[in-house]
Amino acid sequence: MTLEAEIHEQPVALARLLAEGGPEVTALASWVRGHEVRYVVIAARGTSDNAARYAKYLWGERNRLTVGLAAPSLFGPYGSPPSLEGSLVVGISQSGRSPDLVAVLEEARRQGRPAFAVTNDPASPLARAADAVLDLRAGPERAVAATKTYTAELLAIALFSAALAEDRRMLHELNRVPDLAEAMLARAHQVEDVAEAHREIDRCAVLGRGFNLATAFEWALKLQELCYVAALAFSSADFEHGPIALAEPGFSVFAVAPDGPLRASVQDLTARLRSRHGAPVLAMSDHPETLAAATFGIRLPGSMPEWESPIAAAVGVQLFCAALSRSKSLDPDTPRTLRKVTRTR
Amino acid sequence: MTLEAEIHEQPVALARLLAEGGPEVTALASWVRGHEVRYVVIAARGTSDNAARYAKYLWGERNRLTVGLAAPSLFGPYGSPPSLEGSLVVGISQSGRSPDLVAVLEEARRQGRPAFAVTNDPASPLARAADAVLDLRAGPERAVAATKTYTAELLAIALFSAALAEDRRMLHELNRVPDLAEAMLARAHQVEDVAEAHREIDRCAVLGRGFNLATAFEWALKLQELCYVAALAFSSADFEHGPIALAEPGFSVFAVAPDGPLRASVQDLTARLRSRHGAPVLAMSDHPETLAAATFGIRLPGSMPEWESPIAAAVGVQLFCAALSRSKSLDPDTPRTLRKVTRTR
Repeated sequence: MTLEAEIHEQPVALARLLAEGGPEVTALASWVRGHEVRYVVIAARGTSDNAARYAKYLWGERNRLTVGLAAPSLFGPYGSPPSLEGSLVVGISQSGRSPDLVAVLEEARRQGRPAFAVTNDPASPLARAADAVLDLRAGPERAVAATKTYTAELLAIALFSAALAEDRRMLHELNRVPDLAEAMLARAHQVEDVAEAHREIDRCAVLGRGFNLATAFEWALKLQELCYVAALAFSSADFEHGPIALAEPGFSVFAVAPDGPLRASVQDLTARLRSRHGAPVLAMSDHPETLAAATFGIRLPGSMPEWESPIAAAVGVQLFCAALSRSKSLDPDTPRTLRKVTRTR
Repeated sequence: MTLEAEIHEQPVALARLLAEGGPEVTALASWVRGHEVRYVVIAARGTSDNAARYAKYLWGERNRLTVGLAAPSLFGPYGSPPSLEGSLVVGISQSGRSPDLVAVLEEARRQGRPAFAVTNDPASPLARAADAVLDLRAGPERAVAATKTYTAELLAIALFSAALAEDRRMLHELNRVPDLAEAMLARAHQVEDVAEAHREIDRCAVLGRGFNLATAFEWALKLQELCYVAALAFSSADFEHGPIALAEPGFSVFAVAPDGPLRASVQDLTARLRSRHGAPVLAMSDHPETLAAATFGIRLPGSMPEWESPIAAAVGVQLFCAALSRSKSLDPDTPRTLRKVTRTR
């Protein structure tokens, strides 16, 4: 029950990062302000790549930064790294030990660009290759599937955003994150019932947009690694440009759509998927209308700003996938063939 | 048979772009050199987003440019576009008519940044929002699934790269592209036999890395829209960070791995997928060893540089998916519920 235990540790782990990480984040933001940064390049893989997707939208919307994801193979195998002039480089990794990510940060330093690492191991090679480290303080993560380090990465990304913008209101709102995680955990039984209803699926699509594009990709990844479901993640806009042809009565569509400027468009799409395609829809939302328009619903805690919702939604995703894995008589603690640290080059 | 006809038009369409596009590309490259460009932002959706993935690696490797994909929802729904200072903005779209992409180019001009459009319709809104246009000259594309406009986008991206680098050898090598497409079309029967052997699949993974990450994503997209297969595309490195748990005897893995610095790592992975997971592997490669290590093989024409291979590989992907669609008694000319022009906001 390692995975289950780590899912339930999240309110404490997130509160620890809030309590102890403040000075580190403030120092980091002030150091970054001392550089001329035109854009941000993030190097990450797996779950951390989904945290990077969150940073792309949050730092874009809150800090007006253009954020791109690095192409690690240009830095290693091809041996012809692009120019990073004008960039801030960020490496995100729970273990900090994948050589291809370390190579991106080493190149940043070679080119004299500022680089920091977001990691759960401040002694890791990734941390050593960086100028500064944002330590996740999530405690050792033993389950193969990342849970508490993912939400800690999201919180670290949001803390950095608030500190860089010197946005006191945002910092204040972040203090509620442990309670939001707790509120989601309190819904475990409801989420598990919804998961149980999906025990037969072996393919599905997971849609999100904006801040919760990250949630859609993380949900799909957890469905793949814990439940062996061929889950396809899409921006709901990209889904309409082709893959929507997959939708049919036997093909479930999951949608993450909390209140915000994109909610209505996602809800319009899911309503069409139900009525025209006959596809069953599971919506994760805090909005009654979006929940009512779906076949199944997972209710997010209300009264949080949209940019904060991916942290609560991630806890819902974890509860859902751990329960679905058990419903399928699989063992979520030991997904076949996976190891905790993956060293790709 | 619209799709089939358009697939076979490619050598002619590509030769037309080579013959007529030269002066436009040269002028564009010299105009771009007149700006201080620190990084590139590309706005694209669907098939064109896969062309953007090719640009990310090609312009990174050949032109040392850091390339990122835009987050269109920041420009429209959220109404808080990031700063584009230091950027070159590129819109890629067959029709040039998706409002969310037009919004990105309009914002670039508002911020005084250079922006060009790569499109098959030089009178489209996307083209009108741009400072300059690279016209694909592919002729009207009537099938819902993009084929000749995708390979024309790849060729346009490569022509721009060669012109920007003033690389005569690369320009010379590009003259062979129509012959490479022709050589791939000559293998139609072999590809169709391999497709026929896969008629029962309804889920699979498609792997690629580097230049051919684009091919993996395009193959997956065509499998989704033409064959209703839940095809998951991954960088082979990302696949190892979790989704590899999906691999089992009934789960096919397709891998695009022509000769180059990444071929050995992809081949190592596919060999493991066969021996340890029992997953059937279909390899698309020009290398005998990689083909021999797979359960099924699609041979790419030899003696082309790796960066040129995605164009030939795309033709193979199209032939495969059109044939698989027919094998599944579907109609590749009219995928359910899709329209040619998708207008997302």
